[in-house]
Amino acid sequence: MKLYDSRRAPNPRRVRWFLAEKGVDDLEIVQIDLMTGEHKTPEYRAEVGMTNVPALILDDGTALTESVAICRYLESLYPEPNLFGRDARDTAIIEMWTRRAELMAAMPLMQAVRHGHPALAVLETQVPEVAANNRQMAERSLAIFDKRLGESEWIAADRVTMADGVLYSGIEFSRLVRFEVPEAMPNVTRWLAAMRARGSAKAGG
Amino acid sequence: MKLYDSRRAPNPRRVRWFLAEKGVDDLEIVQIDLMTGEHKTPEYRAEVGMTNVPALILDDGTALTESVAICRYLESLYPEPNLFGRDARDTAIIEMWTRRAELMAAMPLMQAVRHGHPALAVLETQVPEVAANNRQMAERSLAIFDKRLGESEWIAADRVTMADGVLYSGIEFSRLVRFEVPEAMPNVTRWLAAMRARGSAKAGG
Repeated sequence: MKLYDSRRAPNPRRVRWFLAEKGVDDLEIVQIDLMTGEHKTPEYRAEVGMTNVPALILDDGTALTESVAICRYLESLYPEPNLFGRDARDTAIIEMWTRRAELMAAMPLMQAVRHGHPALAVLETQVPEVAANNRQMAERSLAIFDKRLGESEWIAADRVTMADGVLYSGIEFSRLVRFEVPEAMPNVTRWLAAMRARGSAKAGG
Repeated sequence: MKLYDSRRAPNPRRVRWFLAEKGVDDLEIVQIDLMTGEHKTPEYRAEVGMTNVPALILDDGTALTESVAICRYLESLYPEPNLFGRDARDTAIIEMWTRRAELMAAMPLMQAVRHGHPALAVLETQVPEVAANNRQMAERSLAIFDKRLGESEWIAADRVTMADGVLYSGIEFSRLVRFEVPEAMPNVTRWLAAMRARGSAKAGG
């Protein structure tokens, strides 16, 4: 099994964060340089079937992409600490919050970077209106997390779960366009400081 | 347990499609009229915690939103036919394709409708560039599904899974802005006809 990773991109960061939370350090990791197009070579396409990073290649040659699918699969191999849920109800609540974190905040923030950061013009035909619209969407959505984090130490449960990792990775990536959590959101601010204090924070960057 | 549903919106459609594939017809279903703002009343917000539809209210009062999380939870109650995977590898491949269907095609198509259809101006500050950008993104992404469906009868496995339901619901919703599968994509065209021929197709609309 091996993992294709890329240090600067937001989706691979989720998997690195997840592995760090699990304490997994024996996985073969291969770095892919997106800026020089290593994910678009015929060799990468042939092995992965897509140009996406991260990708997990299983021992039978199956290529998995999509960070959350990769992490859920890895949880089956490394079950503790549990980040995806212990029973159907717990799993559903974690998936609900993971999706909210991703769809309402992390993805808009990634789009804001992709359409708004000069260095990414090489990867995207940038549309300023798309950058602005996504940034506003993320700011509005963070209010939902501020409310939740006023009631709960972590986003989806009484422990860190995948939902925390997805929101955290999205916010850290958005520093590229100088996005900051609004001061009017004390609970997200408290939670972000707690996420940055964890050992897994070093897996980012 | 009861399900808040809304007949015209795309995310509730996924859950209706899922229930129809499962043959579940004994779930209490309550219709919510988005156009008159029934999802924004104090009562709905108090019970669901969000203004999102669909929402599944469990017997202990837990409110689940997010269509895919709702469906995965329902699969724990109604396991057959299996739509989310039987083991870790099967589950990962289905989640990967479900995410591709959602993030690369269904969500862009929904955004194209939300930002492009006059009737939805009541729900959204519409930005024409956002509509156009999303429509182009969806068209490009369908090529990935056309390639896949040239190799496989269904998107994620040798049977219908959640991935098929997500792409199917997204394409059907996009008829509101007269989106059509390009003629150059014979495999998606064949698959769409097969999806429309299933009994579950009647759960849409």
